[in-house]
Amino acid sequence: MAEDRIPDDDLLIADTGEVEVRPDDRVDDERHDQENRLKPAYVSAVHIALEAGDKGAVYDLVEPLHAADIADLIELLDRSERAQLASAISDLMTSDVIAELNDYVREDLMDTLSAQAVAVIAEQLDTDDAVQLIEDLDEADQRAVMAELEPETRAAVSSALAYPEETAGRLMSRDFVAVPEHMTVGNLIDFLRDEGDLEHDFFEVFIIDEGHHPVGTCALNWILTTPRSVRLTDLMQRDQTLIPVTMDQEEVALMFQKYALISAAVVDESGRLVGQMTVDDVVHIISEEAGEDALLMSGAGDGDINEPLREAFSSRVRWLIANLGTAVVASSIIALFGAAIEQLVALAVLMPIVASIGGNAGTQTMAVAVRAIATNQLTRANTRRILWREFRVALLNGGTIAALIGVAAGLLFSPMMGVVIALAMVINIAVAGLAGVLVPVIFERLDQDPAVASSVFVTMITDSMGFFAFLGLAVAAGLAPL
Amino acid sequence: MAEDRIPDDDLLIADTGEVEVRPDDRVDDERHDQENRLKPAYVSAVHIALEAGDKGAVYDLVEPLHAADIADLIELLDRSERAQLASAISDLMTSDVIAELNDYVREDLMDTLSAQAVAVIAEQLDTDDAVQLIEDLDEADQRAVMAELEPETRAAVSSALAYPEETAGRLMSRDFVAVPEHMTVGNLIDFLRDEGDLEHDFFEVFIIDEGHHPVGTCALNWILTTPRSVRLTDLMQRDQTLIPVTMDQEEVALMFQKYALISAAVVDESGRLVGQMTVDDVVHIISEEAGEDALLMSGAGDGDINEPLREAFSSRVRWLIANLGTAVVASSIIALFGAAIEQLVALAVLMPIVASIGGNAGTQTMAVAVRAIATNQLTRANTRRILWREFRVALLNGGTIAALIGVAAGLLFSPMMGVVIALAMVINIAVAGLAGVLVPVIFERLDQDPAVASSVFVTMITDSMGFFAFLGLAVAAGLAPL
Repeated sequence: MAEDRIPDDDLLIADTGEVEVRPDDRVDDERHDQENRLKPAYVSAVHIALEAGDKGAVYDLVEPLHAADIADLIELLDRSERAQLASAISDLMTSDVIAELNDYVREDLMDTLSAQAVAVIAEQLDTDDAVQLIEDLDEADQRAVMAELEPETRAAVSSALAYPEETAGRLMSRDFVAVPEHMTVGNLIDFLRDEGDLEHDFFEVFIIDEGHHPVGTCALNWILTTPRSVRLTDLMQRDQTLIPVTMDQEEVALMFQKYALISAAVVDESGRLVGQMTVDDVVHIISEEAGEDALLMSGAGDGDINEPLREAFSSRVRWLIANLGTAVVASSIIALFGAAIEQLVALAVLMPIVASIGGNAGTQTMAVAVRAIATNQLTRANTRRILWREFRVALLNGGTIAALIGVAAGLLFSPMMGVVIALAMVINIAVAGLAGVLVPVIFERLDQDPAVASSVFVTMITDSMGFFAFLGLAVAAGLAPL
Repeated sequence: MAEDRIPDDDLLIADTGEVEVRPDDRVDDERHDQENRLKPAYVSAVHIALEAGDKGAVYDLVEPLHAADIADLIELLDRSERAQLASAISDLMTSDVIAELNDYVREDLMDTLSAQAVAVIAEQLDTDDAVQLIEDLDEADQRAVMAELEPETRAAVSSALAYPEETAGRLMSRDFVAVPEHMTVGNLIDFLRDEGDLEHDFFEVFIIDEGHHPVGTCALNWILTTPRSVRLTDLMQRDQTLIPVTMDQEEVALMFQKYALISAAVVDESGRLVGQMTVDDVVHIISEEAGEDALLMSGAGDGDINEPLREAFSSRVRWLIANLGTAVVASSIIALFGAAIEQLVALAVLMPIVASIGGNAGTQTMAVAVRAIATNQLTRANTRRILWREFRVALLNGGTIAALIGVAAGLLFSPMMGVVIALAMVINIAVAGLAGVLVPVIFERLDQDPAVASSVFVTMITDSMGFFAFLGLAVAAGLAPL
């Protein structure tokens, strides 16, 4: 009595009624809060047990956790406590825990282990996770660990490491199921019962020709709903998305999203099947790629709270120095108008407002453009239309803000000051709208990541234009001398 | 000869050698560029054929495209051309195309169709996609479309609409496979061959008790690799992640990521199985949730390039007005120091530098904190540690920038000016580091989305503190009078 589409009458609630979210519907136990995070009280219980050196108590506390939660717990602890915890719960430190750990935390933990111990862990991992573990080590450690691996694992890992970072070749799993064209559904099931293991999950079976080239793919649910006698070549989908082994992870992620893939075949330069990518690995990439733009735009580099202090400093200070350069450019424009400011201090009071709102408007447009470029929505085919759209949004925004500040400045200072600041505001917000689209688009065409450097340029343009338009118009209007 | 882990000797490339990404390895055909986007030349060919009214030519151009690419093409065209294209290729406008369309574009397109036509499309969609189509319509249209639906679809859609937006109840699929506990692998396969359809993909089978409560789950690959005689209860995994029907989509997405799920059972208030969520739907949520923080932080609202102009204006201008308020606060601090600026115009020239770098440093820290909160990495259990970490990064950054600007200002203006600006810079960057963590953390504790309003507050703090510290120190040092 399996059901496909259960017509569940009890569930039919009146069209208009809304179901309220009650707090007690949510995850909530003695260890997790409602949002499925470990409770601070639980984390400090572990902390106290570690401090007391009570390994038994630590073990009892951690034992009921899921591997992903153990990884979270390790990340939440102080750096000094992490190795201590790992040794107290050594048999709970499964490959799943290691695979779920934040890259920086894992690297740090691996540094405390011998090459042999790391190799033992790598052997238990899926090849793609083993690669991730080993690629983070420095070169000497990498070589030491590789030397300790079984030949088969070593071969898989070194073949992965031969591909550039963040490509399908690095990330793909070398565990997949591929069968020849002549098989029937029955043959396949018999084969899987004989040969398959329960260890490696797979979601589709690839059909390959004699040259190892994929010719089609069968989802497992198709196989399960089809009589034994049907030939796989009659069931399979011929039109499949193939991932070239050198494809960048960002493009892989976009492919999975665009075509709603669960898994996909990875092929080498000659089109032969060499691995598969599965969606559970790709979700991490999607989340990382979508989330990193906010960090890159703010100049926060990797922006991981587990990043070592020195790396966080060096990636962020670089952008602050760049920002220092652009701020100096903007302030040299102010210097041109020194006499005007000396005469009329109100100019110094009001000028940061024009620059600040312009910067904000530019950042809004830039964030929209960067996101649209990242999701392949803003392309050469519609750049002109989007530029025109953003320019109109900017004029509406500029008009509104100009009216507000113009009236206020007109009343507080002088009517002419109101006109000057309103005009400067419209000009600066319009320029911000254009720069917010053009700067990321230009970086993209130059094959640079538009998220990385757009912010510095957009801010420089809006700051400089804000000071120049406002002070320049004030001088032109005769409010102050040049 | 299926293979699990193919030991593929040809693939073994020397440890040290790197494989270069060659442009010709990538997707590239007459319609797609290397990054799998539609080529501008192709889009304008469609545009020209539409303008000429040549439906046959349009059809021939579009016919070879995948559904997801047809959706992309519609989005790339001007608004006026979209309905025109849809009518020219009506039999290619499958439910897959509709499901892949951007929300705004779909809504716009649906507005051009009759309720009956929309109902016909909704019937072809999976229930979750039908819900997405119908929930976007305004209330009158919603009712008209609902009236045209088959009773079964209407029941499913109205039960979904009874749940709040962005909850599992709205998003789940009502098509899933659930079987009773007594079944064996053989029974299940026989049942699926009799009853299953090839239309709805599924990745696991849920085992339920007599009360419809899920008791375990079997991945399809386990079923395929297990002999017919094994009981499902012996094969299934008892420990499964259940999604409450009222769970917010953001939490669902985090669950899928944390536990690497492909699909998961959705249960109602009494723990009965009512639907499933599958990862192909969740990837869109993951991408949306991760990507929206950059947009929210910049105050760009939904930030979708297909959003109607009026909505884009109203969501953005709101934040610009808020920013106007905070800029006025900062500029009122400048007004306090009018006499000082009149005496020493250099202060007006240098003060925006202190405010700007502080703002940038605050935004960096804030972006890191917001991302860490969104991914459940920054919780009550480690807030103090992260605050301390960010403060130390800020001191390092502040020291570096202060040294640079201090020396420059010391040489260009006066040694005391160098000291003043350096001190002000350290103070402002340190404050920025603290505010960058505390503001989003406080919003989170107040149950507000930290991405939404943090930016305005952080900028206000860094702007005001920048002006106050710099101008105040200048007066205190005797560089200028108050």
